[in-house]
Amino acid sequence: MTYVRNAWYVAGWEQELAPETPAAITILGERIVIWRTASGSVHALEDRCVHRLAPLSLGRCEGERLRCMYHGLLFDPDGKVVEIPGQETIPPRARVKGYPVEARHSWVWVWMGDPEAADISLIPPAVGYDDPAYILGHGQLDYEAEARLINDNLLDFSHLSYVHAISFGAGPQFAQSQPKITPLARGIRSERWITGTLGASNRKSDVPVDSWQTYDFLLPGVLLMWSGNYPAGTAERLGYAPPPQEDAQQGLNFTSQAVTPMTDRTSRYFFSWGPHRDHGDEAMRDGMMELAAVAFGEDKVMIEAQQKVIDMTPDPVVMPSAHDRGVTLFNRLVEKLARAEAGGQQQAA
Amino acid sequence: MTYVRNAWYVAGWEQELAPETPAAITILGERIVIWRTASGSVHALEDRCVHRLAPLSLGRCEGERLRCMYHGLLFDPDGKVVEIPGQETIPPRARVKGYPVEARHSWVWVWMGDPEAADISLIPPAVGYDDPAYILGHGQLDYEAEARLINDNLLDFSHLSYVHAISFGAGPQFAQSQPKITPLARGIRSERWITGTLGASNRKSDVPVDSWQTYDFLLPGVLLMWSGNYPAGTAERLGYAPPPQEDAQQGLNFTSQAVTPMTDRTSRYFFSWGPHRDHGDEAMRDGMMELAAVAFGEDKVMIEAQQKVIDMTPDPVVMPSAHDRGVTLFNRLVEKLARAEAGGQQQAA
Amino acid sequence: MTYVRNAWYVAGWEQELAPETPAAITILGERIVIWRTASGSVHALEDRCVHRLAPLSLGRCEGERLRCMYHGLLFDPDGKVVEIPGQETIPPRARVKGYPVEARHSWVWVWMGDPEAADISLIPPAVGYDDPAYILGHGQLDYEAEARLINDNLLDFSHLSYVHAISFGAGPQFAQSQPKITPLARGIRSERWITGTLGASNRKSDVPVDSWQTYDFLLPGVLLMWSGNYPAGTAERLGYAPPPQEDAQQGLNFTSQAVTPMTDRTSRYFFSWGPHRDHGDEAMRDGMMELAAVAFGEDKVMIEAQQKVIDMTPDPVVMPSAHDRGVTLFNRLVEKLARAEAGGQQQAA
Repeated sequence: MTYVRNAWYVAGWEQELAPETPAAITILGERIVIWRTASGSVHALEDRCVHRLAPLSLGRCEGERLRCMYHGLLFDPDGKVVEIPGQETIPPRARVKGYPVEARHSWVWVWMGDPEAADISLIPPAVGYDDPAYILGHGQLDYEAEARLINDNLLDFSHLSYVHAISFGAGPQFAQSQPKITPLARGIRSERWITGTLGASNRKSDVPVDSWQTYDFLLPGVLLMWSGNYPAGTAERLGYAPPPQEDAQQGLNFTSQAVTPMTDRTSRYFFSWGPHRDHGDEAMRDGMMELAAVAFGEDKVMIEAQQKVIDMTPDPVVMPSAHDRGVTLFNRLVEKLARAEAGGQQQAA
Repeated sequence: MTYVRNAWYVAGWEQELAPETPAAITILGERIVIWRTASGSVHALEDRCVHRLAPLSLGRCEGERLRCMYHGLLFDPDGKVVEIPGQETIPPRARVKGYPVEARHSWVWVWMGDPEAADISLIPPAVGYDDPAYILGHGQLDYEAEARLINDNLLDFSHLSYVHAISFGAGPQFAQSQPKITPLARGIRSERWITGTLGASNRKSDVPVDSWQTYDFLLPGVLLMWSGNYPAGTAERLGYAPPPQEDAQQGLNFTSQAVTPMTDRTSRYFFSWGPHRDHGDEAMRDGMMELAAVAFGEDKVMIEAQQKVIDMTPDPVVMPSAHDRGVTLFNRLVEKLARAEAGGQQQAA
Repeated sequence: MTYVRNAWYVAGWEQELAPETPAAITILGERIVIWRTASGSVHALEDRCVHRLAPLSLGRCEGERLRCMYHGLLFDPDGKVVEIPGQETIPPRARVKGYPVEARHSWVWVWMGDPEAADISLIPPAVGYDDPAYILGHGQLDYEAEARLINDNLLDFSHLSYVHAISFGAGPQFAQSQPKITPLARGIRSERWITGTLGASNRKSDVPVDSWQTYDFLLPGVLLMWSGNYPAGTAERLGYAPPPQEDAQQGLNFTSQAVTPMTDRTSRYFFSWGPHRDHGDEAMRDGMMELAAVAFGEDKVMIEAQQKVIDMTPDPVVMPSAHDRGVTLFNRLVEKLARAEAGGQQQAA
């Protein structure tokens, strides 16, 4: 598993984190307990009591603190033990690791790297339920596959023409043409005009339109995409440059998706999707969520099967194709940053 | 897993291979996709796209070709890639391994060794649905056990007196007496008279008969057996030599069975069984299949339990008994040929 | 897994061992077949035929003997093969390991160490159904956790205040005060007065009482506990010394519990519990069993979760607390004796 640690990983949905109800999530092989206090703060600690390694996620919230419910050790939100029942002195090593954590754009984000380096400005600008412009639905899927394979899937939309041939009904254009791929500081941007199309499944146009689709795929594995239809001829008129979002005539929508590596063979995939308020309503949103359930299930079938094949292959080697430019750029960025982090750790040690 | 590679392994039932419906099977740890085209040809390829290792068994048949439904690579039936969507040039390494494959005697056979050495005459002469002489039923069982243990079981019928004491009701003779074992070029032959018997479970005779049973057990793990009842005294009259099949008075039947090693701990067991047309009818066949379901289930319980014990034993060692002559001869043949194959590979390398 | 081998392990409930019905149990990673003959004797052998390693627990009882039902080898209760079907001679190595076994106090005990050292006086004095003083119920739970974690749990009752805060309702005293821990030759003794209490869940007193609780925790992992209520002031009057059992005013009860390590990650937990005949009836016993089902389920949830955390931790280290004195003493005893056994084996070799 090569992943960047100095990044914000999605740990869950903000609205599903009930007050004083600790939740366990595994990220990059580390068990983490996340909880929201009655006062509204969100905290994240190593999910492992320093005493006998019981999970703190089975614990009890007491004010800002969390009590291990095996033998009663009480933890401050920074990981320091403040009470050991039956014992006067608390040794200095009685503490667990704390993680920087932020609730934003409907997601709870955990910083997996050096806490000193945690930078809130690096949280990807997802669209959450707090954004009045969109009518969103959301869901999540657990994968028996490593996160990289899901990232790879999202970095190359040519699979739409095959995996989702019927569900999204997006036609052969995704495989026949190349999007414009631009490197970003923390990811890549993909942009694409599809001209003279009737659009995808449940957002069909009656007349041919020019369909624009663009997404940023950002560290550690977050896809932020909007697409919309424009009058036929727009692409050519603009010289295939990006169109102003506000000129979209129809079908403007946004999806935020995040891939969280849990272990080296399990991942959690979070997604929200929905139309812009001026281009759709709750009914359209519900239709899009039904479509997402089918289509993202198709991805899951393919990727989990791919993982099984990889695991049965002694020395698995891929043969990148022309469509893999985004995949390759992003994975190189991950490797470069991960190497730098490992080097920094060695230097520090 | 020591198995002979230069042999035909049963991959499935010919009649269950629907046209243009790729099927996945694992043989000797290798994933293979098998499909029948609209024209009736059967093809077998490595089940792993050369691009990103997605399984071709999730693919789509297009004429004689198979398209990977992840990113659309199109494969010739020999494994060569003939189309990469979005890309003009196809590199020479864009190919996957092809397997010689034959549909015969109701089974689809895959040659796991050197394709150049694939020899159709080595397909064991099983009795399939195309044989007008027998009224067959068929079935299959998946084992959580390595194939060798199932082979061992089929190579020593003394287990009938214990494992199948009630189901086959074959009596103690199978354990008390030895069959005649003869080495064959690609297996062993077992022959046995049981005299003065009323026969097994559902093919009982009213009067004592002499029952003849003979099977060849052939590489890689195929049992071909016929048995039948003769008038009491026949065995002695023939000096315990093999009787002419056509003189069988009653109960003549044939069973073909094949054991396919999938992984080192999973196997698939295929079987057909039924009476000769002159000795029974569909009703008798159905009764025999009901019996097979019970009896082969008994083998599965015993062998899977045996596998578990073996896996919990640090250095498992067997203590062969007098009944193990067939087991020992066959396993030695496998080891000799497997060694020769490995030597040939080394020489070639 | 560090466990003492020269000890009696609980293999099952005596009353559940039906005559001539072999049962399989795994102890310390070794598969053992246990059976009771028609004459009432109980035998225990290695559960692995010397021929092809089939489990003898699928075998058939024949008098005092057990027949392997794969190929029919017949075993004396000491493990010697006395019949090999189809073969005249029986080689001297045709034998499996026998285990000393005793049925006592409702449990079947198996000695896992040197058979010569098997000492019946080392069977812990559990209270079984043959004891007329108590009205018992019983149960068992399988854990996906190593036995040591369950032992640790039973060696430190401070967890009652947290794990069982609601079920046993025992209050904070178990965590706030220390029991008196005394080393024994083969375990530890825990003794504790809780004064001025209304008692635990379903055996509440109307007026405050002094509650006494004492248990021995003995090798290999057996808890034998009685508790009872005394008039308020008794503890102080006795200088907090142990009270005479017969002076208990109310709530006198006994529980026997045994933890059997099956593999390094699975254990079986056996328990009986019930009131003294003078302090309760069948209805009270049933209420106590309902309570046990809830409370012991709470332990299982916590301990299995703890095991998962440990297994995800690269170098798991515990930080003992003041309550861990019993845990530490017992585990040191286990390590000392296990080392001595290993040394004795080396010397013997």
